[in-house]
Amino acid sequence: MEKIKIAIVGFGNVGKKVYEAVEESPDMETAGIVELAHLIEKLKVNIPNVPVVDNIEKLGKVDVAILAIDSRHVPSTAPIYLNMGINTVDAYDIHGDSMIELKESLDKISKEKNTVSIMASGWDPGTDSIIRAVLEMIAPKGLTTVNFGPGMSMGHTVAVKATPGVKDAISITVPKGMGLHKRLVYIELEDGYDFNEVSKEIKDDSYFNQDETYVFCVDNVKNLIDMGHGVHIERKGVSGNTHNQKMDFTMSLTNPAATAQVMVSAARASLKQNPGCYTLIEIPPIDCIYGERISLIKRFV
Amino acid sequence: MEKIKIAIVGFGNVGKKVYEAVEESPDMETAGIVELAHLIEKLKVNIPNVPVVDNIEKLGKVDVAILAIDSRHVPSTAPIYLNMGINTVDAYDIHGDSMIELKESLDKISKEKNTVSIMASGWDPGTDSIIRAVLEMIAPKGLTTVNFGPGMSMGHTVAVKATPGVKDAISITVPKGMGLHKRLVYIELEDGYDFNEVSKEIKDDSYFNQDETYVFCVDNVKNLIDMGHGVHIERKGVSGNTHNQKMDFTMSLTNPAATAQVMVSAARASLKQNPGCYTLIEIPPIDCIYGERISLIKRFV
Repeated sequence: MEKIKIAIVGFGNVGKKVYEAVEESPDMETAGIVELAHLIEKLKVNIPNVPVVDNIEKLGKVDVAILAIDSRHVPSTAPIYLNMGINTVDAYDIHGDSMIELKESLDKISKEKNTVSIMASGWDPGTDSIIRAVLEMIAPKGLTTVNFGPGMSMGHTVAVKATPGVKDAISITVPKGMGLHKRLVYIELEDGYDFNEVSKEIKDDSYFNQDETYVFCVDNVKNLIDMGHGVHIERKGVSGNTHNQKMDFTMSLTNPAATAQVMVSAARASLKQNPGCYTLIEIPPIDCIYGERISLIKRFV
Repeated sequence: MEKIKIAIVGFGNVGKKVYEAVEESPDMETAGIVELAHLIEKLKVNIPNVPVVDNIEKLGKVDVAILAIDSRHVPSTAPIYLNMGINTVDAYDIHGDSMIELKESLDKISKEKNTVSIMASGWDPGTDSIIRAVLEMIAPKGLTTVNFGPGMSMGHTVAVKATPGVKDAISITVPKGMGLHKRLVYIELEDGYDFNEVSKEIKDDSYFNQDETYVFCVDNVKNLIDMGHGVHIERKGVSGNTHNQKMDFTMSLTNPAATAQVMVSAARASLKQNPGCYTLIEIPPIDCIYGERISLIKRFV
């Protein structure tokens, strides 16, 4: 049986883990890594038999391009591959209207080009989205709360780093329960800046001014970096008119490895869908798992 | 918009909860209840505008028949409705080869009759099956354990009640962790029987002889009946080659209400699938949820 040929687009924290997940998948192989030309030299990737190119056309046949890139670049990047007839998988995580707009635009291209695009396919959004839907299958009325952390928040970390006087920083999300969070921000201060003033500026930023935020000054932010993250999804709800149905889902994960693995699972499913763009809740879960259909049904059901 | 017309086949603990879940669903209505002729008088169901019949042909148009019946009767019952062009949903829970045989036979009839059959659609098997698949999307290697209870086990209770000398009984499943269980059996003894002998016979039964089993004699089993049940699914596994990814799913539920609600959610999805027989892991989760597609994607993703 021919293996699914995966191109890894972007080779940062997540891209490296995508490579590992593809290599561990019995039905897949890495066709190559696609990176920006000016980064290829810097990356110094040296994996036997895996070409690193600045243009996917330099690789042979590719079935699926896994976009291990910043969410903000997905809307401009995914269409390039879909237009070439290559399926795409991304972990787009910008919520609200932009999610729907992206889905509609990728759906149109996918149908025109007879390809499949799976979007928002990390652990949240992604597998957590499936969990949230499953909880409502059991109890359609009630409240779901999603509690993240403790773990690094990439978006908040980037925001802190942009604050004048901050040399390096990390923002950690800590759950307070019932979907509320506090922020612990650790910074290295630039010479000549006052900690209290910088701290106030961070707390006034729109990323932080809604949350309970603590800022600490440290000597070395690099020593605090740990890619562990977690989530706790709770629902208490009503089945029919029976109340107090309680459901809890908790994970403790190395974040980039989990994101990468879910994208690889979605890449497998992309080959089993009709042309179009999908989120994970629109795909039969069985399509994401390696194995023979009847044995999967025996195992999971 | 026309409502989905549901027939409830069987009006026991689960059937009654199916009725409540259908009535709480904005997109559904109860077409009627189908019961065995000799039970209809005994049931004394008195719900305004809901006919109770011994044959579904006495009801008007029906879209989906929800089979709230003993699993052992599903293989003979589901084909009756599929042959009439009515979709079916069941909570068949007998594992192994019989599950696959049933699926293949219902799939064939469904395709011939242009209908959809959704099987094994309770909380386990059912929504727990989806959870088990999702956990492997995140970490394909590793071990999943499923821990049930504390709660009543119907199968074990029926087995105990069949033991000579047992007037009434209940068997409670208690989790020991890592997928192992013990059994707590409470019995009312018939006059003239020796408790120790009856207890030994229960422990030697094939339902119990593999498990740590305790038998207790009580005055009144009815007072012990509580329909609460629970499950704890644990997975510790590997994403790519990153180990120690930990996932936990826990529920505490009123059992018949949860089973009924999942069947009702599956009934909705049955109208969105191509003809055939499906388990829940073969269906996009979004199809089970009431609501407009784009708003569901915004909410869950």
